[in-house]
Amino acid sequence: MALPALRLKKNEDKRLRQGHLWIFSNEVDIRLTPLKSLEPGGLVRVQDAAGHDIGLALISPQSLICARLISRDSEANIDSWFFQKRLAQALALREAHFPTPHYRLVHGEGDFLPGLVIDRYGDQLVMQTSTWGMEKSIPLIVEALERLLPGSGILLKNTSSTRALEGLPEQVEVLSGAVPEQLEVVENGLRFRVPARSGQKTGWFYDHRANRVRLRDWSKDKRVLDIFSYVGGWGLQAAGFGAKELVSIDSSQAALAQLRENAGLNGLADRVDTRCGDAFTVVKDMQGQEQFDLVILDPPAFIKSRKHLSEGVQAYRRINQMALALLKPGGLLVSASCSHHLSRDMLLEQINRGASQSDIPLQLLAEGHQDLDHPVHPAIPESAYIKALYLYRAMRPT
Amino acid sequence: MALPALRLKKNEDKRLRQGHLWIFSNEVDIRLTPLKSLEPGGLVRVQDAAGHDIGLALISPQSLICARLISRDSEANIDSWFFQKRLAQALALREAHFPTPHYRLVHGEGDFLPGLVIDRYGDQLVMQTSTWGMEKSIPLIVEALERLLPGSGILLKNTSSTRALEGLPEQVEVLSGAVPEQLEVVENGLRFRVPARSGQKTGWFYDHRANRVRLRDWSKDKRVLDIFSYVGGWGLQAAGFGAKELVSIDSSQAALAQLRENAGLNGLADRVDTRCGDAFTVVKDMQGQEQFDLVILDPPAFIKSRKHLSEGVQAYRRINQMALALLKPGGLLVSASCSHHLSRDMLLEQINRGASQSDIPLQLLAEGHQDLDHPVHPAIPESAYIKALYLYRAMRPT
Repeated sequence: MALPALRLKKNEDKRLRQGHLWIFSNEVDIRLTPLKSLEPGGLVRVQDAAGHDIGLALISPQSLICARLISRDSEANIDSWFFQKRLAQALALREAHFPTPHYRLVHGEGDFLPGLVIDRYGDQLVMQTSTWGMEKSIPLIVEALERLLPGSGILLKNTSSTRALEGLPEQVEVLSGAVPEQLEVVENGLRFRVPARSGQKTGWFYDHRANRVRLRDWSKDKRVLDIFSYVGGWGLQAAGFGAKELVSIDSSQAALAQLRENAGLNGLADRVDTRCGDAFTVVKDMQGQEQFDLVILDPPAFIKSRKHLSEGVQAYRRINQMALALLKPGGLLVSASCSHHLSRDMLLEQINRGASQSDIPLQLLAEGHQDLDHPVHPAIPESAYIKALYLYRAMRPT
Repeated sequence: MALPALRLKKNEDKRLRQGHLWIFSNEVDIRLTPLKSLEPGGLVRVQDAAGHDIGLALISPQSLICARLISRDSEANIDSWFFQKRLAQALALREAHFPTPHYRLVHGEGDFLPGLVIDRYGDQLVMQTSTWGMEKSIPLIVEALERLLPGSGILLKNTSSTRALEGLPEQVEVLSGAVPEQLEVVENGLRFRVPARSGQKTGWFYDHRANRVRLRDWSKDKRVLDIFSYVGGWGLQAAGFGAKELVSIDSSQAALAQLRENAGLNGLADRVDTRCGDAFTVVKDMQGQEQFDLVILDPPAFIKSRKHLSEGVQAYRRINQMALALLKPGGLLVSASCSHHLSRDMLLEQINRGASQSDIPLQLLAEGHQDLDHPVHPAIPESAYIKALYLYRAMRPT
């Protein structure tokens, strides 16, 4: 069956030849290959201006990013076996590096499967598709997963706001097996239960696993504050590493109830205090009242798109400055961001401004990134999004 | 005794108020406080244009960076007790986090002691001063060290090329105790001997400790190539983590002899092969002949100053592309740089270019930085200089 072509304008193949996977709508020669005539989610043969094949792409004719390369082999058969090979490669990488089957199995572009995310919770898989192409490929992907990991439950949890950019509706649906409401995670030696349907994203944030394990050296006998705690990923690990007291702040009663249950699962209930409310308000009220040895600040993305940059940057500055003020001399602030639009330099600058205004001497001791089950595509800067900065408050003024 | 003032021009106090420690010569109001009349290495009272005190600085009247803040307390007494307090704070941070006394004890600006570096090798200290101010402070620092770490040998190893910027001569001298020619290091469980006087820098590169320990997951039964090996810091640790074969390339016969001695110290001599020569030439000759599971590429700084940027970037690109070509599918390239002028993004771009030209699919799995005994000053971007990128070669073409 002959695939429709997608012809690029002159020189617009350059980024793709340098490894990138995205095609923007203004790069397409719509005179030769009218984008709007193509079916959303369909497969096309991408060609440069001279008509040479570049590879196969799945298309979203209405979107700014109108196509994403899925293979550089223009003769490839994009069937369930194609997906199975890609998935098997992703699985092998994870199996070689994680002791239990709890990880992000597929990380979109980073695993050469743009638009697809799959998180694994033992024998349960939670899947998210964010493009028309992956949406249409769901049956092939499910077929591949059923062969690769037979017996797995598969939940489609398409609640991400990025779907709206493609004109895709929200949708939550079990695609295979039976998926319980509570999923189980083992991370850095602790057990967690997380909500499948009602939680954030797929239920858990595997991306910070390697950043959380660094708390090991900073937790023993410490008083710890976890701002934006969700179900306790950071704070309970600090408690598991020996913290004597944990205060967790979140705006969701349900998340805090789950956090307390998770504390109980690990025998840590006696040292956990939860405070429900808007983090900015709760932390503001704590100013001058309390101090901590370790403060963890892992907020949701304040900058979802470039147009929110300036207000988002201010929010990072404000919450970081308030967090710093709760830090004892000799204490550590872990300041994270999952906004791609906030670079590491910008985050550090916001923290430094607050610190110098408050005369708090800081030393940046370490920097963390997303864990290896969230590979970064070297040609796609957007695929790197997590940063975690470890800032030590020096014992004395300088 | 009244200290001479150093008066800044209008608004030139801003960067200092945001935490920075450097004063550039064009920021000084030389009409009011003629720089050239001040004694190199002397202490001055820094004042803003309105005459308000900012702090105390040590000066280098002939240099572009003509002064560096040493205290924000303008009444501080900069005596051996002052240095001892700063050193004790630095020591406490290291003692809390490293199992043996082998680390960078003082990292210049990052420890609020601009111009001073001290590496610790058990009971031997190797010190470097890079400014007139620290040069003149040597007697006070030695006094402080003798109280803080009594019985230590102290070697002044002032061979860094950055001293020339200040008009300081090279100088190697024992300042206290007796310093043997071979120093001992324990790192990540392995023992090393390193040359005190004839080696690179202070003898060892502690900055990559945390990056080397990541080899643990990638070494077992692997064939490893270590390019620019020096005395074996990276490669022997891979061997210690279970690599079955290590090929080490360096241009120095002496470094490779020391590497073989270090291999023997750890019972690893049987699996080590050393090749002496220019790395570019040796790696070029290996093209198409050999492949490895793990390739480590930690070159010396190819970009020592901004004017060498373009040729340096090309050198990084060329050596990375050649290194990639020696990598088996499923293998890992660890690509490091210690050039501050080469950003993480620029390094990744060079690697990606080579990869896409050679059709090698890569996934960036992890990123490393300088270890915590090399604190970054949050207001001084130049104090962050190390990057290590962990790039996985996917099993199949995409």
